[in-house]
Amino acid sequence: MASEMKKVGFIGTGVMGGSMAGHLKDGGYEVHIYTRTKSKAEELIAGGMIWHNAPAGLARECDVIITMVGYPSDVEEIYFGGDGLIAAAKPGAYLIDMTTSSPALAVRIYEAAKARGLHALDAPVSGGDVGARNAALSIMAGGDKAAFDAVYPIFERMGKQILLQGAAGAGQHTKMANQIAIASNMVGVCEALIYAKNAGLDLDGVLQSISTGAAGSWSLSNLAPRMIAGNFEPGFYVKHFIKDMGIALDSAQKMGIELPGLALARDLYMRIADAGLADKGTHALYLAWD
Amino acid sequence: MASEMKKVGFIGTGVMGGSMAGHLKDGGYEVHIYTRTKSKAEELIAGGMIWHNAPAGLARECDVIITMVGYPSDVEEIYFGGDGLIAAAKPGAYLIDMTTSSPALAVRIYEAAKARGLHALDAPVSGGDVGARNAALSIMAGGDKAAFDAVYPIFERMGKQILLQGAAGAGQHTKMANQIAIASNMVGVCEALIYAKNAGLDLDGVLQSISTGAAGSWSLSNLAPRMIAGNFEPGFYVKHFIKDMGIALDSAQKMGIELPGLALARDLYMRIADAGLADKGTHALYLAWD
Repeated sequence: MASEMKKVGFIGTGVMGGSMAGHLKDGGYEVHIYTRTKSKAEELIAGGMIWHNAPAGLARECDVIITMVGYPSDVEEIYFGGDGLIAAAKPGAYLIDMTTSSPALAVRIYEAAKARGLHALDAPVSGGDVGARNAALSIMAGGDKAAFDAVYPIFERMGKQILLQGAAGAGQHTKMANQIAIASNMVGVCEALIYAKNAGLDLDGVLQSISTGAAGSWSLSNLAPRMIAGNFEPGFYVKHFIKDMGIALDSAQKMGIELPGLALARDLYMRIADAGLADKGTHALYLAWD
Repeated sequence: MASEMKKVGFIGTGVMGGSMAGHLKDGGYEVHIYTRTKSKAEELIAGGMIWHNAPAGLARECDVIITMVGYPSDVEEIYFGGDGLIAAAKPGAYLIDMTTSSPALAVRIYEAAKARGLHALDAPVSGGDVGARNAALSIMAGGDKAAFDAVYPIFERMGKQILLQGAAGAGQHTKMANQIAIASNMVGVCEALIYAKNAGLDLDGVLQSISTGAAGSWSLSNLAPRMIAGNFEPGFYVKHFIKDMGIALDSAQKMGIELPGLALARDLYMRIADAGLADKGTHALYLAWD
């Protein structure tokens, strides 16, 4: 590892970010973290990470800063807020947003960073908590090739499928394509089970017949059994998926394309969120038919 | 094989049925076939199958009769027409409809067959032309367990995943669940690619990033590359898929359940059929956005 890449900041050490930061620590990086309340970081601090009480303080120490937060509004504040990364980062630093966020915001960050002599990449991931824990994430990056190459060893500590998809925003666009494919498929998986249930079939038997053929999918194999078992714990939160679908629909509208399947999926998810299921896993969509 | 199961009739020796009948012939069965025009059966006759010029003639010779035709209306005519199987089959014969058809019609066939001392099963398949050719179909059966067990050796010549899903109609209902899962997923796969294309991404790169994770599916792995390549040959016909979705929506309505994802998928498919793509493969849905 190049010596100037030794200090990595990680903002957003939740379920996924915590695992990812841990892999960097294990890889020999000096890992700096910021959390609003220090108590939430106790475990990571005990593991040797260095805590800061503000993003700017972390930024002043680090060569590379990774953000992995909840919503585009959080990203915007961390990068552009009064005490934000764009203003506070050291010249030549690398800023990597791994949050699933808006492609347009990724472009804004890239341009603002460039104007200050910083290197920004958007690099959202898929693979969920399990992928984060096993350092098996798919990392979809957008930005300059030189910056991507420079931080590639860091990506390698966290992911398996690591691809530069294009210029700034391309990582976020790729993640949107991922979420779009998932959205309608979740509707199909739920409707298939609801149909089978109402037809009086044994749902385990149905899954056995249909999972390995042309109807097969990750969701059918991994989430349908949880739907049948009535286990709706996350996994991936309904509220975050709704955020992602909103970003995708927004981007699609700007491009002038209609995505009726995605629009329908978002409506169904908003219905279950309104019914109090926002903090359940995405497979709780099954309950929309209850 | 029990001696009384030696003679098998096969009605509907198209792309899939032809392969399936061939496996029975290879398995030592005496295979009888019916086609409207003899010339269409020349190859199968040359291979040792016995041709009949009417379903009734075939029925009078066979212990087991398999039907694998296009539409429920074809099934209805072959079973209930003036010269149909219900009237013409030998007492104790087994009638197996492997067409993807209406669950309600499967129940009607079962009851009419039973009243005449015949055994009827519905046993639609998934796996397409490749599954038929490789004797690797998923066979989803409905009917009496004794009848299922009796013809199991015949199913084994054609399929790998062979399950009795319940009483008469349960095979068709299971196949409907299969088609319902496929329908919305096809919408999601198309929308993901359309989005990515409009975002200016390299579609092969996007597939590399998203195919192996939570967005992964048989359709994404097998059909998305054909969409990208602009190859819309069937595979599985748009017109047949529209038929299947119509049956599923009809059944769902009778059950009093709403399947908005399936309804949307059917509308999109009808749009491309109206545009002249009914005889293309189901992945031609991609062209709905052109």
